[in-house]
Amino acid sequence: VTNITWSPAMAEKAGYKHFMLKEIFEQPRALIDTFRHRVDPHGGEIILEEFHLNPDEVKRLKKITMVACGTSFHAALVGKFMLESLCRLPVEVDLGSEFRYRDPFVDSQTLLISISQSGETADTLAGLREAKTKGARSLAICNAVGSSIARESESVFYTHAGPEIGVASTKAFTTQLVSLYLIGLYLAKQLGYRQPDQIQQNLQALFKLPTLLQDVLDENRAIREIGQKYMKANNFLYLGRGIHYPIALEGALKLKEISYIHAEGYPAGEMKHGPIALIDEHLPVVVLATRSPVFEKMMSNIEEVIARRGRVIAVSESDNDTVREKVETTIPVPETSLELSPILLVLPLQLLAYHIADLRGTDVDQPRNLAKSVTVE
Amino acid sequence: VTNITWSPAMAEKAGYKHFMLKEIFEQPRALIDTFRHRVDPHGGEIILEEFHLNPDEVKRLKKITMVACGTSFHAALVGKFMLESLCRLPVEVDLGSEFRYRDPFVDSQTLLISISQSGETADTLAGLREAKTKGARSLAICNAVGSSIARESESVFYTHAGPEIGVASTKAFTTQLVSLYLIGLYLAKQLGYRQPDQIQQNLQALFKLPTLLQDVLDENRAIREIGQKYMKANNFLYLGRGIHYPIALEGALKLKEISYIHAEGYPAGEMKHGPIALIDEHLPVVVLATRSPVFEKMMSNIEEVIARRGRVIAVSESDNDTVREKVETTIPVPETSLELSPILLVLPLQLLAYHIADLRGTDVDQPRNLAKSVTVE
Repeated sequence: VTNITWSPAMAEKAGYKHFMLKEIFEQPRALIDTFRHRVDPHGGEIILEEFHLNPDEVKRLKKITMVACGTSFHAALVGKFMLESLCRLPVEVDLGSEFRYRDPFVDSQTLLISISQSGETADTLAGLREAKTKGARSLAICNAVGSSIARESESVFYTHAGPEIGVASTKAFTTQLVSLYLIGLYLAKQLGYRQPDQIQQNLQALFKLPTLLQDVLDENRAIREIGQKYMKANNFLYLGRGIHYPIALEGALKLKEISYIHAEGYPAGEMKHGPIALIDEHLPVVVLATRSPVFEKMMSNIEEVIARRGRVIAVSESDNDTVREKVETTIPVPETSLELSPILLVLPLQLLAYHIADLRGTDVDQPRNLAKSVTVE
Repeated sequence: VTNITWSPAMAEKAGYKHFMLKEIFEQPRALIDTFRHRVDPHGGEIILEEFHLNPDEVKRLKKITMVACGTSFHAALVGKFMLESLCRLPVEVDLGSEFRYRDPFVDSQTLLISISQSGETADTLAGLREAKTKGARSLAICNAVGSSIARESESVFYTHAGPEIGVASTKAFTTQLVSLYLIGLYLAKQLGYRQPDQIQQNLQALFKLPTLLQDVLDENRAIREIGQKYMKANNFLYLGRGIHYPIALEGALKLKEISYIHAEGYPAGEMKHGPIALIDEHLPVVVLATRSPVFEKMMSNIEEVIARRGRVIAVSESDNDTVREKVETTIPVPETSLELSPILLVLPLQLLAYHIADLRGTDVDQPRNLAKSVTVE
C-alpha cells in the first residue's frame, strides 16, 4: 500500500511540453524541499529525525555499502566520493542485480544505504533484504512515501522531490545527491570529522545551490541550440573523472534512454585503453571539465580527443578560458564546491538529452521499452 | 631496463594473417606456460616461490585491492569474484586513473594486486606507488619481465604468455585470469578455506582447460561466418551477470578497439534501467548464457531482448537447448567450473571481434589511435 501525498494538480505539465522538462525545471525548488526541514541555517546543525542510529552505533560502523539500480546507482557512485571524503569510512557501491547474487561481505557494522526513487525497484529491495539477513543496519533514500523499500528499512530519508512522471529520472537524482550530502555531513559530525563552523560553511554552499541551478536552467535556450547542432550524431561519448565520472555515466544514460542514441559514459583516464579508437570527426564527446584537482588531466584528454578530430562539448565554468579556447562548444556552469558540483553539472546534460530527443521527435516522457519503476527482476 | 627473454623468431606471425589471430590461437599453450611450473599435479600443491608473504602475514590481511587499466581491469573484475569466493576476503577493484587520485583506504593489512601486461602502464604504476606509501603489501601480475611495475612490487607473478604484439590484448588477459585463479587457490589454502583434495579437484579442472580452449578455437570458421552475418551493424550490446559481466565488458572492448563499432558491455540486470531503449531489429546483443546460478535470470533478459526484436547471439553450452531454441545465433562452448568459465567464454568474443574487424578491413594489429602500452597518464 502506497500513501499518495500529492494532489493530482501537482502532476500536470504546468505549461511545459513534457513532464521531463517540467521536472528538470523543478529542481531548484525540489532541492530546497529536500534540505529545508533538515537544517538549522544559523547553528550549523543538521536534524535527521529519521535516522535511527545513535552516536555510539554510528561510531561502531566499519563501512557503508550502497545498493541501487539505474540512475539511483549513479547517485550512489557520487555518494561514494562524498561519504568517503566526509566520513572516512570505506564505501562500497553495487548494483541491486549483482549484489543480491554475490554473497556480499556485510555484517552488523555495515550501514546499507539503498537508493530508489519509487522505493519498489525489485533488485534493490532484494539486496536490502539480503543485507538485513546478514545483520546490516539499513537506511533508505526514497522519493515515494510508504514504498516497500521505505517500509522495510530501519531508517528512511525521503527526498521530497514531488511526483516524478517522466521515465527518465531528473529531480529524483539531484535530490538523492543532496540527501547523500546531508547524510555525509551528519555522520561526519557524529564521527568528529566536521566541526560546527565547517558544517556551517558546507551548508552555506548548499543554500546557494538552488540559485546556481537556476543559472544553469537559464541557459536552456542555448542548450537547445547545441542540441540542434549535434542531434544527427549516431553515437556520443561522455567523459569525467573522479566525482564527475558518475555524472558522465548519467548524462550518457539520459541520452540513451530518451533519444535512442548509443551514448556511453567513460572514466576519462580509460579512454586511451580502448574507446579512443571510436573517435573521428563524427563523434561528439561531452567532457566534464570544471576546475578540480584533476583539471589538467582532463585538459590532456580534451587534447587527445581534438587530435583525433572528435567534436568536444565541454561543461565548464563561464570564465574558464583554457577550456573555451580549445573546444568546439562550451556549456557554462557556475562555480561551487567539488562535493556539490555533480548536482550542478548534471543539469546541462539532462537538458541536452531532452532537447536532442525532442528534436528527433521521440516520446520523451514514455520512451520505448522502458517503465518508470522496475518492479520485476 | 627490460630484459628480453623472447627470441625474434617467436615474434613472427607463423602463417597467421595477424598477430592478434596468432595470439588468440596461442592461448591453450600460453595457459599451460602460466601454470605448469607452479603446480604439483599429484599432491594438490601450488608452488608460488615468487609470493613473499609468509602464512602469518597472509592471515593478517584484511582485504585485497586490485588496480589496473583497460583489459587488465576486466581481469581484475573477474578476479574479484574468484578471490572473494575462494579466500573470503573483501576485494575492491579500481582503475589506475581513478584510484591514484582517490586517497584510497589502504594500509599494511591490504594486499595490493596490480595487473598490467606491459608492466609499464603509467596510471597502474602510480596506483601501486600510492598504495606502497600507505604501507600496502604488493603483488604484481605482469607479462613483461623486469618491467617497472614488476621491479617496484614486493612479489611478482609473471604470466609467461610470451610476447603480445597485437594491440588488442588476448592471451595476456586469459593468462592473467589463470594467475588470479592460482593466487586465489594458494591464499585459500593458507587461510584454511581449501583442503588438499579440493585443490586437487580445482587443479584438475584447470588442467582440462587448454583442451577446452582448443575446442572453442576449432569453431573459428563458424565464428567467422557469424561475423559475416553481423559485420554491418553500427552498434552492439554485450550482456553478462556476475563473473561473466566483466567478460561482456571485455568482449565489447575488443570489438570497439579493432572494428571501431560502438559496442558496450552491460550487467544484464541493468538493461531494463536504460539500455533496453536502444534495442530494435538492427541491434545485435551478445549474451553470455551458460548454466550458472543466474541462468534463469539471463533467460528472462534474452526474452526481453527478443520481445524488442533485438538479434541475440548467445554464447552457451552446445547441449543447452533452452538457449538454442530461443535465439538467432548460438556460439557453443564446453562446460567447465563457474570460476574458470570466464577464461573459456572470452575466446569466442575475441574471435568474433577479430573476424568482424578483418571483414571490415581495419588494421587489426595497429588500430587507429591506440598504443600497445599506455605509458602516459
